[in-house]
Amino acid sequence: MAEPDAEQSAREQELVDRVAASFAGADDERLATVMQSLTRHLHAFLREVRLTEDEWNRGIAFLTAAGHITDDKRQEFILLSDVLGASMQTIAINNAAHANATEATVFGPFFVDDAPRIDNGGDISGGATGQPCWVEGTVTDTAGNPVPGARIEVWEADEDGFYDVQYGDDRTSGRAHLFTDDDGGYRFWGVTPTPYPIPHDGPVGALLAASGRSPMRAAHLHFMVTAPGLRTLVTHIFVRGDEQLASDSVFGVKDSLVMDFEEQPAGTPAPGGREVEGAWARTRFDVVLAPGD
Amino acid sequence: MAEPDAEQSAREQELVDRVAASFAGADDERLATVMQSLTRHLHAFLREVRLTEDEWNRGIAFLTAAGHITDDKRQEFILLSDVLGASMQTIAINNAAHANATEATVFGPFFVDDAPRIDNGGDISGGATGQPCWVEGTVTDTAGNPVPGARIEVWEADEDGFYDVQYGDDRTSGRAHLFTDDDGGYRFWGVTPTPYPIPHDGPVGALLAASGRSPMRAAHLHFMVTAPGLRTLVTHIFVRGDEQLASDSVFGVKDSLVMDFEEQPAGTPAPGGREVEGAWARTRFDVVLAPGD
Ligand SMILES: [Fe+2]
Ligand SMILES: [Fe+2]
Repeated sequence: MAEPDAEQSAREQELVDRVAASFAGADDERLATVMQSLTRHLHAFLREVRLTEDEWNRGIAFLTAAGHITDDKRQEFILLSDVLGASMQTIAINNAAHANATEATVFGPFFVDDAPRIDNGGDISGGATGQPCWVEGTVTDTAGNPVPGARIEVWEADEDGFYDVQYGDDRTSGRAHLFTDDDGGYRFWGVTPTPYPIPHDGPVGALLAASGRSPMRAAHLHFMVTAPGLRTLVTHIFVRGDEQLASDSVFGVKDSLVMDFEEQPAGTPAPGGREVEGAWARTRFDVVLAPGD
Repeated sequence: MAEPDAEQSAREQELVDRVAASFAGADDERLATVMQSLTRHLHAFLREVRLTEDEWNRGIAFLTAAGHITDDKRQEFILLSDVLGASMQTIAINNAAHANATEATVFGPFFVDDAPRIDNGGDISGGATGQPCWVEGTVTDTAGNPVPGARIEVWEADEDGFYDVQYGDDRTSGRAHLFTDDDGGYRFWGVTPTPYPIPHDGPVGALLAASGRSPMRAAHLHFMVTAPGLRTLVTHIFVRGDEQLASDSVFGVKDSLVMDFEEQPAGTPAPGGREVEGAWARTRFDVVLAPGD
């Protein structure tokens, strides 16, 4: 499409200014700021690509389909934000690097509030299938002081790539919470993470397919770590060597979060004297929490 | 919130570049262009306002609510596009001014495909309440040649501000189509348009209220004019003197579309010898169609 001439550009800009001005009267100054910025960037997009009326219709149809597939268990708008990197950007904006503190990544849609409590050394898998994996580490502050009693929520998919909540029955598996001990240490059994696709049978999946993008997430284990006076950390650990690391569909991978998962041959004595059939894995994740705001 | 430092900015920009690059492989080059531009402008918005995680959550909740209120009869995403001026901007982009051709404006959600046909001089109101209004004009091309046989679709709300389809029964009123005569002329009876609010009991209405904006549309009568070889025109005419002209909730008003609706006192003889009880109004709208693409 031809570039607009000066008269046309002026007409378009006048509209942008008029819309932005319409939000200036909001009682909440922050709302005015956000809506005016949204207006300016949205219109800049429309004008830059010279959006056609057919494309506008397709955009409306896309949002409508996303709205209709979204329910208590499926959140297509979060998926959309994820695959556009908007979720990760929001996290980046709100979790500016702080000294040596552990980096954050996306929360994802599969956290559940009331996961069972386990003791240190216990098992979060609750029947989730997969290779047994021992995870241990410490929680400290940025000065290196151990943080006893920090609450650690962990959750992960099974080896088929599904979280418990995706099975549509009432199972609870692959999730738990535990607390660091007096030395800030923690340890538990889970399963070795494997790559899985984000739900891709809806409009977001169609967008990824049309864009030649994979819906796969790099294999990961979710953590949320909270302790009084310290910044809550929402993050994952990733598996070094995983082929999906470079093409994670939600842009969640950070180098500092890629861990060595060491394969242990069948028969290797396991922590806590557990009898493991076959090979297992172990990894270490030391968490450093930034100061609270 | 403090401005991000250079390191933080670089981290944010790196993410933008990574997301944009993920769309570069789309088979459809236009999709790649659109998605990369959308990514850059979306992230520019997030970074400019330093969107908080709470605001991100509210954005997701807004889109979810918009999706859930949308059905066959209610289209909240179109309303959202309308109140953000995005619908009007798309129309501006795709209907660049062409010489003296009549300007376009928003289509709106209330068009119906199979409105009844009337003859010239007939009545579109079909029982819609309101002051009788005579509308006449011509359809010509930009060289001034009359366009016989042009199809004119007209539709409007009744004096209570409702379109027929909003009543939830099967009535057809306030809409019809007709064709220009051999001289390019057309004429019909309707009702004098009155201001009405866009549906504002959903998330878009809440946004308008929080922004101190009125949901009212300036009073208008919709036209869609089609003729072979000429650009289809979707537009309205507005009523000079209407107080809502300056604050139309969807930014649809253009000066060239504001018409004089001349009040005719009770007893003034009406066109076609129609017996009108009380006052009526008349207006003229001469349509000029741009050449087809
Ligand atoms: Fe996950
Ligand atoms: Fe309308």
